[in-house]
Amino acid sequence: MEKTDVLVIGGSAAGLVAAATGKSYYPDKDFLVIRKDKQAMIPCGIPYVFGSIENTDKNILPDALATKTGARVKIDEVISIDRAKKICKTKAGAEIQFEKLVLATGSRPKTPRWLKGANRENVFTIPKNKEYLDEMTTKLKSCSKVTVVGAGFIGVEISDELKKSGKEVTLVEKLPRILSLAFDDEIALNAEEILVSNGITLKTGTGIDEILGNGKVTGVRLTSGELFEADAVVLSIGYQPNTDIVKDIGLNINDLGFIKVDEYMRTDDPDIYAIGDCAEKRNFVTRKTSNVMLASTACAEARIAGMNLYKLSAVKTFNGTIAIFSTCIGGTGFGAAGLTESQAISENFDIVTGTFEGIDRHPGTLSDTQKQSVKLIVARDSGVILGGEVQGGLSTGELINVIGLAIQNRMTINSILTTQIGTQPLLTASPAAYPFIKAAEAVALHKVK
Amino acid sequence: MEKTDVLVIGGSAAGLVAAATGKSYYPDKDFLVIRKDKQAMIPCGIPYVFGSIENTDKNILPDALATKTGARVKIDEVISIDRAKKICKTKAGAEIQFEKLVLATGSRPKTPRWLKGANRENVFTIPKNKEYLDEMTTKLKSCSKVTVVGAGFIGVEISDELKKSGKEVTLVEKLPRILSLAFDDEIALNAEEILVSNGITLKTGTGIDEILGNGKVTGVRLTSGELFEADAVVLSIGYQPNTDIVKDIGLNINDLGFIKVDEYMRTDDPDIYAIGDCAEKRNFVTRKTSNVMLASTACAEARIAGMNLYKLSAVKTFNGTIAIFSTCIGGTGFGAAGLTESQAISENFDIVTGTFEGIDRHPGTLSDTQKQSVKLIVARDSGVILGGEVQGGLSTGELINVIGLAIQNRMTINSILTTQIGTQPLLTASPAAYPFIKAAEAVALHKVK
Repeated sequence: MEKTDVLVIGGSAAGLVAAATGKSYYPDKDFLVIRKDKQAMIPCGIPYVFGSIENTDKNILPDALATKTGARVKIDEVISIDRAKKICKTKAGAEIQFEKLVLATGSRPKTPRWLKGANRENVFTIPKNKEYLDEMTTKLKSCSKVTVVGAGFIGVEISDELKKSGKEVTLVEKLPRILSLAFDDEIALNAEEILVSNGITLKTGTGIDEILGNGKVTGVRLTSGELFEADAVVLSIGYQPNTDIVKDIGLNINDLGFIKVDEYMRTDDPDIYAIGDCAEKRNFVTRKTSNVMLASTACAEARIAGMNLYKLSAVKTFNGTIAIFSTCIGGTGFGAAGLTESQAISENFDIVTGTFEGIDRHPGTLSDTQKQSVKLIVARDSGVILGGEVQGGLSTGELINVIGLAIQNRMTINSILTTQIGTQPLLTASPAAYPFIKAAEAVALHKVK
Repeated sequence: MEKTDVLVIGGSAAGLVAAATGKSYYPDKDFLVIRKDKQAMIPCGIPYVFGSIENTDKNILPDALATKTGARVKIDEVISIDRAKKICKTKAGAEIQFEKLVLATGSRPKTPRWLKGANRENVFTIPKNKEYLDEMTTKLKSCSKVTVVGAGFIGVEISDELKKSGKEVTLVEKLPRILSLAFDDEIALNAEEILVSNGITLKTGTGIDEILGNGKVTGVRLTSGELFEADAVVLSIGYQPNTDIVKDIGLNINDLGFIKVDEYMRTDDPDIYAIGDCAEKRNFVTRKTSNVMLASTACAEARIAGMNLYKLSAVKTFNGTIAIFSTCIGGTGFGAAGLTESQAISENFDIVTGTFEGIDRHPGTLSDTQKQSVKLIVARDSGVILGGEVQGGLSTGELINVIGLAIQNRMTINSILTTQIGTQPLLTASPAAYPFIKAAEAVALHKVK
């Protein structure tokens, strides 16, 4: 019988970071990560293997993240968990005894069983699996007309990358707008315009009805009735948590299919933690369970689990998860944190919004200056910031983190108006027209009037 | 007798923003800005008129900032203030009655009277004056060997720009390191290496003793005794507040020469406000008076004054000024917020520091990936973040704003460790190795051990 102190099931971002953090905080404990795949992919880098970074070998999440701290990584698969005896059995036949178990089993692409033709050749999903992605990139090389179904971040990023690498790309989205879980209409519309101007064909407000073909994919029929040619289809219609391994051991699963956890990532079993895409999340603002899956969220959870395995070391001062997204479409950055305006309204918040459009350098005569606009969604009476959206240049990723930190600190418009930011001609907007502050001012003036 | 409700003396960034904000909050009041210069310069853009943006016409701070809100801008100069009668007299002979007065008189370059040869031809300072800068850029065109004295942000940026435009540049700094008021040695050293590798000659730890020449500048002698040729000298050895106009009217001036104000930018006279480079600042952390002069600080103060002219509208939730600087040297960004390690030590704080060096995109195989390192300076017992320094790519300006917001919210290492950030391959560091979080982890582990 093998033994370890902390057994981590799953060795993608969450598993590796949990082991690394845990080993750093509890150096006397042994940490073992078990992972099915030989190599882990950087999850958010996956869309870029279809273009900018060429292949999966350049998108490896290094095990060294964990091993350099002294944690161990083993390629194998846990097939059963005995909670009473604290033993996991693996596919390779090992039995491993543990003190603490961390479930970092991740998620897998949703596959639409209802979809006719979904099992034809050259229909792909986007799992975080190197072998699958390698085969997929090889097969895509001989395809020229690719239809991407689902215009969330991954669908949009893959479309952009496939187009860059010379494909004819059609992006299909059932909802009226792309990226609509992260952005309000006016910003999503700008993203759509960029995609279209880059030559991507966009079909929104229509689902896919059937993938046509004879063995291989030859075309796509939409629910709108429209029919067009395609020699490959990429389905990016969301992910579901991998919880098969825990279904028979009595841990609670929430209505959305995630393993229930508390704020310290503990399941109902005090010695079993769950983190990342398989673990329950609660929205920071609404307190409702949420199905957001982000590597950044997963890593934050992994750190919390790792630090708090043997004692509550890091006290959680924020409850719940604030989703912070960003992406880059055709060189333009888009970022969102917290609630969108439409989400806030549907949650019955009484809100005021403010938007300011400026530029991301100053003066605007500097080369590479891009537009930068910030929208803030604010609770009317308290002035608490509930959400923010940014469109801008390559500093968008960090600017949305500024706004994310404001939300997590429950900052009010009043505080934002009296806060201090730093500005520099080549790096930021002007101090006299810094869009985040000016958007706050727009909210304040809206409230005054 | 002319009349206005709010008279603003000075129409650079602070004056224009105060008028714009004030007019937006109090639309029924008349706002008049009086400025000596026909056109205002974007202050932080000035170094770039010597290179990237070619000339001052491309660096105009538009009066529209204020006039589009309905505030007025008038070119003239206030020569006396009668506090009792609330009347200002101008150079052009006007008498203007006001209800509220906002002093935004700015600062001017320190000129070293002690310096032999300081009045030779082709010795320049860097005032925020278009005509002066125009003459200076014209004269510099015929110069090939330029010595810049003083390696603060402006001296460094001007050196970088002059070098880009083909000059032979020598940068002289009295202190052992450049930028040493903003950065600790190890980071300043990196900035020095970039300057040197770009071909700038750096002479630190030595002051300037005499500017040699015969009418025109021909050379420079340092206090170290070294002598070298130069056909122009740019003195960037700091600025002093413009307070001449208030010296005779009994307003209190602090020991550093700034007009005393409270947190709402009110002077000792309840109807007179002072903002920007002429107004007193207190350090957010140490509570001591500070001589930091930044356009971003000035604009923040201008907003506070503007909002609070007739009633305390925006309650200040942060006391004091946290200086947030950023700059870009040869394409590498440098940012600092709050105290440096050496400042914290000299202020007798018991501190722990943590540094993490990563990259600003992920995977690092993406083109344009740059190193990104973050250093945090933290109060040992409370865990409160006192300062941060960043070196990285073009997202450095917003990343230092993330850290600045953490400092202003008095966030602790514990909060940072459990906070949520957003990451994206093309825009930010990896979620598993986000330098800001990893630096916080380094601090935490340092404390644990």
